[in-house]
Amino acid sequence: MRELAGSPGTWSGLSLRVGQLVFAAASVCATASALGFAAYTAFCYLIASMGLQALWSLGLACLDCYALKFKKDLHSAVLLSLFVVGDWVTAILSFAASCSAAGVVVLFDRDIYACRNPQLPCGRFELAIACAFLSWAFSATSALVMFWLLASL
Amino acid sequence: MRELAGSPGTWSGLSLRVGQLVFAAASVCATASALGFAAYTAFCYLIASMGLQALWSLGLACLDCYALKFKKDLHSAVLLSLFVVGDWVTAILSFAASCSAAGVVVLFDRDIYACRNPQLPCGRFELAIACAFLSWAFSATSALVMFWLLASL
Repeated sequence: MRELAGSPGTWSGLSLRVGQLVFAAASVCATASALGFAAYTAFCYLIASMGLQALWSLGLACLDCYALKFKKDLHSAVLLSLFVVGDWVTAILSFAASCSAAGVVVLFDRDIYACRNPQLPCGRFELAIACAFLSWAFSATSALVMFWLLASL
Repeated sequence: MRELAGSPGTWSGLSLRVGQLVFAAASVCATASALGFAAYTAFCYLIASMGLQALWSLGLACLDCYALKFKKDLHSAVLLSLFVVGDWVTAILSFAASCSAAGVVVLFDRDIYACRNPQLPCGRFELAIACAFLSWAFSATSALVMFWLLASL
């Protein structure tokens, strides 16, 4: 089971972390550059959640680099439990933030037609949500791999 | 591993299914009784997703009853894979629907103060979302148990 793609301390694991980090950072930048985002709770929550996701992924990416450089094994039960809890918490928070922001943008766009107002940057909000969903997809993959590794220890 | 609480074909598994079914049905009723819900995509999606959740849980509850009555074993790899896929799909859809509806209600309540309009049944929407989150909690528990069982086969 140690050869599972996406395991901690492998190149595939590191690439998953880099993917999470890049898309989470892109989502934070897209939200922060949308004028007036702070007036909406859903977008404030999205920026907070993506910030947490980026920090967690950065930490794990550094740990993966260290393990790859010094050929350390990161498959102990204690470390895997920590990764499982952290990955699941960040993945669930990211998904909740993406879905609630998506719910608000769909309301603006299709239900109350607020996106016809050119002052509301719906395009940037949509870009931020797309990046957040991509970051969540990488994060969910990591979380599933960690859970599978822990279950098959 | 066959004694894990929440396994298919056990009383704990059946109680999880009944919990999912009851809260999903309560969420559908609360949404359907809120006047004007059909004007909002998020609530239409919530009702569709909770309907699917209720149908899936009803089917699995019937299967659990059958297994309990005739003492059948539901732990084959094929059946567990089917339960894992079905549970994960319904759990993810339920969570997405709950979060997007919650995002819209938070927007109504805190950001644009639409809940001050007495014609908007925010209380019923909140009740529907609370039931949907409870149904999701039971569904996520089932999904995790199934995944754990499949990983440790």
